[in-house]
Formats: sequence, C-alpha cells, structure tokens
Amino acid sequence: MHGRILIVDDTATNRIVYKVKLSDAFYEPLLAADGATGLRLAQDAAPDLVLLDLSLRDLPGPEVLRRLKANPLTRAIPVIALSASPGAADRGLALAAGADDVMSRPLNDAALLARMRNLLRLREEARFVTRAWGHEAPSILGMAEGAAPFDPAPFTPAGTVALVTSRVELALAWKHQLRRQMRDGLVVMSREQALALPPARDSTIPDVFVVEADLDAPGGGLRLMSELGSHAGTRHSATCIITPGEDDETTVMAFDMGADDVLSARLCDHELAPRLRTLIARKRQADRIRATVEDGLRLSIIDPLTGIYNRRYALPRLAGIAAQAASEGSDFAVMVVDLDRFKSVNDRFGHAAGDAVLVEVARRLSENLRLSDMLARIGGEEFLVALPQTTLPEAERVAERLRQMVCEAPVTLPSGDGLHVTVSIGVALGARRSEQTEDVSTLVDRADQALLSSKSAGRNVVTFSRNAA
Amino acid sequence: MHGRILIVDDTATNRIVYKVKLSDAFYEPLLAADGATGLRLAQDAAPDLVLLDLSLRDLPGPEVLRRLKANPLTRAIPVIALSASPGAADRGLALAAGADDVMSRPLNDAALLARMRNLLRLREEARFVTRAWGHEAPSILGMAEGAAPFDPAPFTPAGTVALVTSRVELALAWKHQLRRQMRDGLVVMSREQALALPPARDSTIPDVFVVEADLDAPGGGLRLMSELGSHAGTRHSATCIITPGEDDETTVMAFDMGADDVLSARLCDHELAPRLRTLIARKRQADRIRATVEDGLRLSIIDPLTGIYNRRYALPRLAGIAAQAASEGSDFAVMVVDLDRFKSVNDRFGHAAGDAVLVEVARRLSENLRLSDMLARIGGEEFLVALPQTTLPEAERVAERLRQMVCEAPVTLPSGDGLHVTVSIGVALGARRSEQTEDVSTLVDRADQALLSSKSAGRNVVTFSRNAA
Repeated sequence: MHGRILIVDDTATNRIVYKVKLSDAFYEPLLAADGATGLRLAQDAAPDLVLLDLSLRDLPGPEVLRRLKANPLTRAIPVIALSASPGAADRGLALAAGADDVMSRPLNDAALLARMRNLLRLREEARFVTRAWGHEAPSILGMAEGAAPFDPAPFTPAGTVALVTSRVELALAWKHQLRRQMRDGLVVMSREQALALPPARDSTIPDVFVVEADLDAPGGGLRLMSELGSHAGTRHSATCIITPGEDDETTVMAFDMGADDVLSARLCDHELAPRLRTLIARKRQADRIRATVEDGLRLSIIDPLTGIYNRRYALPRLAGIAAQAASEGSDFAVMVVDLDRFKSVNDRFGHAAGDAVLVEVARRLSENLRLSDMLARIGGEEFLVALPQTTLPEAERVAERLRQMVCEAPVTLPSGDGLHVTVSIGVALGARRSEQTEDVSTLVDRADQALLSSKSAGRNVVTFSRNAA
Repeated sequence: MHGRILIVDDTATNRIVYKVKLSDAFYEPLLAADGATGLRLAQDAAPDLVLLDLSLRDLPGPEVLRRLKANPLTRAIPVIALSASPGAADRGLALAAGADDVMSRPLNDAALLARMRNLLRLREEARFVTRAWGHEAPSILGMAEGAAPFDPAPFTPAGTVALVTSRVELALAWKHQLRRQMRDGLVVMSREQALALPPARDSTIPDVFVVEADLDAPGGGLRLMSELGSHAGTRHSATCIITPGEDDETTVMAFDMGADDVLSARLCDHELAPRLRTLIARKRQADRIRATVEDGLRLSIIDPLTGIYNRRYALPRLAGIAAQAASEGSDFAVMVVDLDRFKSVNDRFGHAAGDAVLVEVARRLSENLRLSDMLARIGGEEFLVALPQTTLPEAERVAERLRQMVCEAPVTLPSGDGLHVTVSIGVALGARRSEQTEDVSTLVDRADQALLSSKSAGRNVVTFSRNAA
C-alpha cells in the first residue's frame, strides 16, 4: 500500500465508491463518516493525505480545515477538498483555510489521482529528514512533521511571484487579482527572461512561477516548466500552470511533469491568490528542510570543538587530493601534527584548558595554510594537513612555519594564564609517478613514522619520511 | 547560463550550428575541434555535459569515452555521443564505453534538449553533497564528484531489473537480450505487480524498471512511471521507457516526466544491456549519496562522545513533546541531570577518565528510560531527559531510579580503577492545561532551578520544581 488516504464524507455511497477506487490504485483508504471522526482519525492514524467533503453535516468544511491546520500533529497532512457545488465562494473559503486543492464533483479520476501523486511525492520528500532523525524529529525544524504553521494572513512575509505569459491582457488580469494581496514581489516576464535568470539561488529567483500552459505555442508552458526544473537557479521554485479551460488531460500531464499546482484561467479571479499563498508556504518549508539537510551534512564532517574537518572527512579527501595529483603529475605533501605532552596539559590545568589549547593550535595551523590545503583533527591531539601541488622544499618551509607559529607565543588558558605548547610534525611526500600510486593510508603511515622520529628526537621538531626525499 | 556544454566535433559547421542552438537555449557552449582538446577541456573547464562526435579523426570516439571515464576528474560528466552513421556496432561500443546516450544525426533538437535536461537535472541532484561540503568534497564518497568508477565488466555486482509488459513476446525478447549479461535479478511483472511492491525500500524493489511506453493502453507506461515515482518504495528506482518505434514526441515527453532513459524497441537487441548497466551504476551512486546525506543528518544531532542526542536536537524536540502533550491533554516531565564534582574527576584522573564517566553515565541513564523518552547531552556534564505522558509520581520514581543507577556501582576508568560518581537532578512537570502552555525554555529553567536546590542540598539528590506540585 502506497499511502494511507483518509476519506471524510458523510454520504455512504461516496465513501464506498472512493474506497474501491483508491484500493484499486493501491492506496489504503481510511473512512470517516463525519467531521469529528475525521479530525480524530487525522490525528491518530497519521494518514498521508485527506480527501475532505466540504458539505459535512456536523462541521463546516472550512472549520475542519482550520482545525487540521491548527493542530501541530495534522498541520502537514495535504488536503484535497471535494465539493458538490462548484460555487466560487466555497472553493475560495476552502483554499483560504489551507486546502491544497478543491475539486468539484463529479470528479475526474485521472485528475484526482494525478493530484494525489503530486501531493504524496512532495510529502515523501519532506519526510527525508524524518527518516534520518526518527519519527517525531522534524519538530527540530520548528514545525510539526516538516510543515510551517499555516499562516492565514495574506502573503506575510511576501514571496516573489513571476507571471510568465506573452499575452499582455493576461498579465494585466493576473496582476489585478494579486495586487490586493501582494504589494511587492510581483513581476511579469517572458519565457526568455525566465530562462535567463541566474544559475545561483539568489533574491532575483521567484518563489513561484505562474505559467500559461500554452505559452508562445501549445504546451510551451509545460516545456518551460521542465527547462526551469533542470536549471540550478530555478529548480527549487514552485510552478503553477494556468490552463485555458477545464482540461483534465493537460492537468494530469502537468502534474506528472512536476507542476505544483494547475488552475483553470476561469478560476484565477478567486483562487490564484490563496493558491499562491499555499505554494509559497510550501516552498518555504522545502527551503528550510534543504537548509537543515545541508547544515547536517556540513556538521557531519566538522570537528565540533575546533571547527576544522574531522577524521571522517580527512582520509577520503586525501584520496581525492592524491588522485588529482596523479592526474596532473604534480607533487603533494601530507603532515601529521601532534601536540607535545598534551596529557599533562589536561592533568595540570583541566579539561577546559586542554580544549582551549586544541582550539588555539587549530587556529594557528589554519591561519598559516593556503585555502587549497586541508586541515583536519584526526585524533585527540593529532592533526592531519594535506598540501596539494607542493614540492619537498615547499613542504619543508610550511612545516617549519607551522612548528614555529605554535611554539613562539603562549596560548591563553580560560584562567587567563599563558601556556607555552609545542607540536611535533612528521611529513611525507606523495609519489608523483602516477603508474605506481601509493595507497593514501601508506602515505599517512609514513608521515606517522616520521612523527615518531620527531618525538624521539626531543619533540618540537619536524621530520621528513625517508622515502619522500 | 544554465550549464556548460562541451562540444567535441572536428567538423566546423557542426560546432557552429550547435554553439548557436545551445546559446539560444541558454547554455554556455565550449568548443573542441579534436578529441585531445576535448579531453583537456573536459578536465580543465569542468563542463556539465559533453556532446561527443564519435567520428573524430584524431581519436576513436570509444577511446575518448574510455579516457573520460578513467579520469577521476571527468568520470562523472554525462556524455551524449553523436553519430552520423547509425550503425548498431558503433552505438553499442559507445554505450559500452560509458556514453549515457547515443543519438544519430540528423539530430532532433527537441529530443536532444530533453535528454540534456534529464542528464543536467541528475547532475544537479548529485551535486547536493558537493555544495554542502565544498568543491572537491565528494571524494569522501569514494568517488570523484559523485561518480562511481565506471565498471566495464557487465553487471557486476548484479542489479535487479523488472521488465514491465503485458505482452509475452516482448518479455521473452527482452529476457533473451539480457540473459547473456545477467544471470540473476531479472523479473517480468505486470503493471499491477509493480504497483503492489512494498512501500519500504527492501531487496524486492528493482534497481531499474524497463517499461513498455504503451503498457496496457497508449501512454500507460508513462503513467505507471509517474505512479512508481510517487510511491515510497519505488521512487528511487530508475525507469527505462521502451517506445514502439522512433518517436521523438514520446521521447521528449518521457524524459520530461522523469524517465532515466528512453529506447526504441528496434534498438533493444544491442543497446538494452549496456544502457541498463549505466542506469544501475548511476542508481547505485544516487543511493550512496542519499545514504551519505542521511548519515550526515543523523550525525548532526548526535553527541559524538556519548552517542545520545545533542543540544541542537534536544530543545526543539522538547517543544514537539510539549505540543503533543497539549493536544492530548496529557502530562509530561523534564529533568536536568548534572554530574556532581565532574571538574575534579578531570583534574584528578585526566581527560580520558572524564570521558569514560560521561559515556558510562549516559549509558546508565539511557538503559533506565523508555524508548519514547528523550535523553540528550546539553552541556559538558549536563543531560536533559524528557518523559512524555508522565505524571508527577511517575517522574518521581524515574528520577529516583536514575539517581540510584548512577551512584550504586562504580564507573570503570581507562586505568582499570573504579570510581564512584553521583548526579544531581532537577525535575519540572509540563503544564497540562493547553490554554496556558508554558514556554519550553521556561520549563527547562524551572528544572535548572530545582537542580540548583539539589546541589545546595548536598548533591546526589532529586528536587522537584515547586510549580510542578
């Protein structure tokens, strides 16, 4: 079963018909015969999507929506509202209350299923963080299961929306709909202008593109959506496709090509604004999840104490530097840097003093390396340095500079006292000959051997691995 | 500009024509007039995609491909091979050498651009890790810029491939093509069987679906692809669509709907096997990147020393527990647990001994809590415990048990000696009345105040926040 779908409808035949249709499409239907039961099941059974009839006898549809969106446990569940009366006011109310879509009965099954696939796909993406962190974890994102609290105020904070059409009268009509709700962030652009947006994510990239389905040519808007989706700058923007009439086939196609919403031009008057608000909120949520994931990734390779790379990152990264050197036919060097008599620092001055020494030594090493060099903490008091495109005399100079920068000035301890510390360094040079590339761990072993010689030579010394000479 | 495209072609008119066409489509074209220049530019200019003519005078096309795939710096760049002669042997050789696609001249521009969009989109996805880790970082994944080394041996290790068709003769023909290359992992299934695959990622989920474009009905295969893409289990599998004839319109549509490859039935004989090999390799790479991202996410909320949650996770998670309690109308409790006289442990026995104490105390706390409770290290020697659905007498019992479990047996230090340690605990009960929900940080402050009372009462004591009674 590929998704638990809660059907809230007080007409038994409707429930039965959709139970069968959803089962046939390999979904797991859950049935609620009134709004109160629907709200309870939405909280307790954690459905992936809700199909909500708007004309329930016990609770008005917008009220059910309002409660779903007010409860942190149900806020993120997508809702498709179903209405027998295609009245514009009802539809607008449901959208304003947070429905992802409103569909009128009789339903076109293909369009309903395409819309469901679209919403379920988004939900799966939002669940990425949940899976890594355990079932209730996304509250760390400041939201319940990845959802931003639904904000009923129109467009606060404002998003930016691009209206993409080549027909001036359409652009004016859309602008007119949105002007009341949005003061800023509304631009009209052509296909060419949309494609010429910068490849980096910056403030000129709209949150949402509203695109005429038949832009410049039949299906031209769908093609543009696909192009924007393959561009680095615009691939995370949402797209709302506007179809000229009610056209279920284009709707299905647009959703399956990745549209975030599809709306008939006829309905723009009442629905463009609330739909854009939902799209902007959802886009913000996706941005936040992506930022959290990138943050997590970055943190996973950083030593929390010193802020430099950790061991997990260092060794594979060194392999990359070695491969690059082999392909360029250039030299590179590896150093192992170890704090001398670090245990005694901890024993005499305490844990906090030891930490201060590690942080300061990491800072001094870092400040005396190039941006292209790599510095990592690979053990309690041990650092690894990799120097790409570096010859033996250059490595010698760098190692000597690092040794001096550590010993020449005392480290200030949390107590305010100064403490002189030193490091011992072992250096090994990567073999330039690409046909007999040395394993990276052998190279580090050689640097480690050289480090041992530095230690036995009395510490505060740089030693070169013999093979490197 | 939305992608740097390297054109390697020794016919000047071809270069000029595609330079213009790609510029018009907002790509940045780079030109190479022979294979050697192409290889150099591929390494130095880091293009996003290569269009490679197979009939270069200086180097055979498959040899250029082989060298691109052998170099870790160019291995991951997608390549579309272009051929004037549509000879099956040439095409097969190029695919076997690692081309992502082979297209015959005269080119259909729409199909070429759709294929380019598809490959560029995949490349953007693979770059996610790179962006978080800095430009050369994916070598940490054991690959150059996210690419698995191209493995010329057929299907080792074997992937699993599902052939989805309702026509027995087609299934037999496909099986026949692949039998030589694949011993295991080949299954024939219907649309219904594909949709009924389990929602979890497990070994029954094929790496690749090969789907007849007109499965059961015209366009039925494209619809199935879209359904599989919205299901949790199958959304990361690759899809190869087989069109009945050369049909550029269906090809464009299939790529824009997310197909990973599109192949005419006529070409299956020679090309299905090498194309599947490329798809499997690419799928593996995507799986590896996803695993790295999930790993990174998981690590970003874990305290590396004790393996329990870190502060970054704890406070938002506590807010989630509070929200849940408010919506259920249930009680919950928060404890702050602090190691007594921890500084003296570090001072007397050293850093390593202090770490051993932290690890062991975290273990004892963890073993005496429920799975639904949350335990985090929120400071040097300070732990936070959250107990959902817990009343005052229950919290009292748990806190007392935790206190006892820490003090009743000595912690074994790295030296082998045993050391008795104790903890002080402050407890606060979350307000049940949802209308006046207390801020989570106020709650932690109350637990902290109670902890201070425990400390001044002589340590190894549990104190309850007064408001909680």
